[in-house]
Amino acid sequence: MAAVRSKISSRALSSEDRLPSIRSFATSMGVSPSTVVEAYDRLAAEGLIRARRGSGFYVAGNAMTPLALAETEPRRDRAVDPFWVSRQSLDAASTALKPGCGWLPADWMPHIALRRAMRTLARAEDAMLADYGSTRGSLRLRRLLLGRFAEEGLETSPDQIMLTGSGTQAIDLVCRFLLRSGDTVVVDDPCYFNFQALLRAHQVRIVGVPYTPSGPDADVFESIMATERPRLYITNSALHNPTGATPSPQNAYRILSAAAAHDVTIVEDEIFADFEPEPSPRLAILDGLNRVIRIGSFSKTLSASIRCGYIAARKDWIEGLTDLQVATCFGGPSPIATELIAEVLSGGSYRKHMEELRKRLSRARREMATRLDNLGIKPWVMPRGGFYLWCRLPEDHDSATLARTLLEENVVLAPGNVFSISQMAAPFIRFNVAQTGDPRILSSLKRAMQIQHPSP
Amino acid sequence: MAAVRSKISSRALSSEDRLPSIRSFATSMGVSPSTVVEAYDRLAAEGLIRARRGSGFYVAGNAMTPLALAETEPRRDRAVDPFWVSRQSLDAASTALKPGCGWLPADWMPHIALRRAMRTLARAEDAMLADYGSTRGSLRLRRLLLGRFAEEGLETSPDQIMLTGSGTQAIDLVCRFLLRSGDTVVVDDPCYFNFQALLRAHQVRIVGVPYTPSGPDADVFESIMATERPRLYITNSALHNPTGATPSPQNAYRILSAAAAHDVTIVEDEIFADFEPEPSPRLAILDGLNRVIRIGSFSKTLSASIRCGYIAARKDWIEGLTDLQVATCFGGPSPIATELIAEVLSGGSYRKHMEELRKRLSRARREMATRLDNLGIKPWVMPRGGFYLWCRLPEDHDSATLARTLLEENVVLAPGNVFSISQMAAPFIRFNVAQTGDPRILSSLKRAMQIQHPSP
Repeated sequence: MAAVRSKISSRALSSEDRLPSIRSFATSMGVSPSTVVEAYDRLAAEGLIRARRGSGFYVAGNAMTPLALAETEPRRDRAVDPFWVSRQSLDAASTALKPGCGWLPADWMPHIALRRAMRTLARAEDAMLADYGSTRGSLRLRRLLLGRFAEEGLETSPDQIMLTGSGTQAIDLVCRFLLRSGDTVVVDDPCYFNFQALLRAHQVRIVGVPYTPSGPDADVFESIMATERPRLYITNSALHNPTGATPSPQNAYRILSAAAAHDVTIVEDEIFADFEPEPSPRLAILDGLNRVIRIGSFSKTLSASIRCGYIAARKDWIEGLTDLQVATCFGGPSPIATELIAEVLSGGSYRKHMEELRKRLSRARREMATRLDNLGIKPWVMPRGGFYLWCRLPEDHDSATLARTLLEENVVLAPGNVFSISQMAAPFIRFNVAQTGDPRILSSLKRAMQIQHPSP
Repeated sequence: MAAVRSKISSRALSSEDRLPSIRSFATSMGVSPSTVVEAYDRLAAEGLIRARRGSGFYVAGNAMTPLALAETEPRRDRAVDPFWVSRQSLDAASTALKPGCGWLPADWMPHIALRRAMRTLARAEDAMLADYGSTRGSLRLRRLLLGRFAEEGLETSPDQIMLTGSGTQAIDLVCRFLLRSGDTVVVDDPCYFNFQALLRAHQVRIVGVPYTPSGPDADVFESIMATERPRLYITNSALHNPTGATPSPQNAYRILSAAAAHDVTIVEDEIFADFEPEPSPRLAILDGLNRVIRIGSFSKTLSASIRCGYIAARKDWIEGLTDLQVATCFGGPSPIATELIAEVLSGGSYRKHMEELRKRLSRARREMATRLDNLGIKPWVMPRGGFYLWCRLPEDHDSATLARTLLEENVVLAPGNVFSISQMAAPFIRFNVAQTGDPRILSSLKRAMQIQHPSP
């Protein structure tokens, strides 16, 4: 391989030149022909040379002008819109600091169990490694979910669960199943920014219900149900994103009753549920999966690289959703993905991993609150768990401006209005306490705040 | 674990009973407390017992009524519609014979390379195992695709490629990006059944263009372009599904010219391209990715369990498609999936694997054609590659009836009309020559044909 590379870089071989035949090159290098085949194949896979069927190997047309080593950076001129955080944080350089992102650092995840599961899977039968999965996804993983649901007092059957490519895709499939363009959908204000991005793709009308420290404002919710005739309400219960607040039992009851009175379906995203110290009231459980559709994923607690989400709902809806998933994705999520997750979940160490994670986050939350307090930045509510702190900036600071300034220093913030339908959240920022340890983050923030409002 | 199971099955412990404390059970069993914790965790993962945070372990409420061991079989009363083959073959029991399915047997896939890639990945850095990927998917895999495209004479850049969760999802994203409900879309007649299922989900009007042995009927195509004002044409080039036919160069030129004259976008699905002995004319290459969008996946040649597809298109379209993928899936495909694929593709053995696969399929195709001929079943065209034979039954036989009869014997066929917009393909069946080796298939088919039309 080195010999070919050097011939190309020294221009002994030019673009479109034929490489020496395998036999002659093997002789001249004193190696076996199979070694040359292997080397040529690898160089071809790298794109430096190309095989032409039946006529040997040639130097690639673009071998002299190698591709740029890195892609262009994520665009910095993008609007601070619901796509802002996802595009900036997903495509950030590995050196970027991401206090605005929505996931834990990789080394907080159960990587030992993941590696063990991966080695186990390397010995699985051929069908697991090569075949399509079933339309609803791994029965083993669906059964593990059933067990977890039963722990919370929700008895379901495997045909009430469908696995999907991700939690987001789970909501997307539900929206495709239930909505028509022009329908009205209610979300919390603030809410997870991607709910807005997703609903835009469905071309529906979005109505926000103000979120209070004990759940969506029930008075406003009741009035929206009566006057706006929505089809769907999408919410995070357990630990609300971005605020980290938890609905009270009374709130959960009022919300569910109001939705029932107006025959509105609810999508309850429980993606942060495992971070709760004690389970809080859940709409899906009160309702018994009648009008509430429960969705979730393993991206926050186990791995976001292994893409998998789930939908638990009425049996007849799951049947329809399954056809929709076949039509749009040809089947459920990767069998390899679902087997990896099932291995980790059933491995025995997962419960301990979650216990340690909860403790670690609790410490990180307290420390971060103290450090932010020094800058005059206050949590709107102190969450019972999870990794978010939804904080109010000192008076007259604008979070979007700060986010743009910090992006110049390679720090990705999550400014309030990307979460807000009403655009009333300019003085807020969502911090991820697990991603905020680097002292450069708060020092950059402090500097940017002083530029915005110089101290007297 | 056995001790707890026996206590439950003997009713020494009943539903909702508290299990012995970890310490006391460890003492009574003469093992360490950590062994008991491990056993309890595993039993909890199985759903037999449940942990209540802070108060120990309890026998699960449904432990006395274990879930059924197998799911209900795929429903046999389903209509023979575009979902028929996918649902029957994806959810078939492992003992079912599937001459109608659209994939190779697991042991024809490069499982040694897959296992090796998996072991390599088990040693990857934490971020690969636990983090979200970038919005367009692995740069490494996109570069490998660039190299393959360049081999065919198509020079592109990484920002013209987006990786997706599957080939189907690639088409789905394109449809969401370009279509509005009520638009007209042209497909081949016959065409891959899931194009129809997918387009139904988009609520568009479907127009079929008859497929000839040298490509879509160009006269009809030209007239459809002029009179139907379609927005999109979706086709398989290289080896057409289900016929296995290949468009001629003249056909490719006329189709592309007609689409250009009426400003129609083309989605060219090249999922079977690697099975060609020699590359045939490709619309995306003639066009240079201007109005043609190329999509594909690795499910047919490498692994269908590792879900990944791709879209290659104009840069501005990829930008819009990327936002759409973030909104609906939160990012590109699993980094683990794309890394596994990149490992196998760049491992050097892939080219050899494909060469052997082509030879093996060529043999299987000839053998199968001979065996079918004995039943009076004739290929409509003899394909240059791939694994399909699109065959005409002897006069007056109906493929849907045969498919229903064979399903009773656990054999999944692909009857002609699931592929056909005009429903004129009742005398046709698509056979997968790699899945038709079991002699029971043809003997069942022979019997069913004799019931339909008893020999004199």
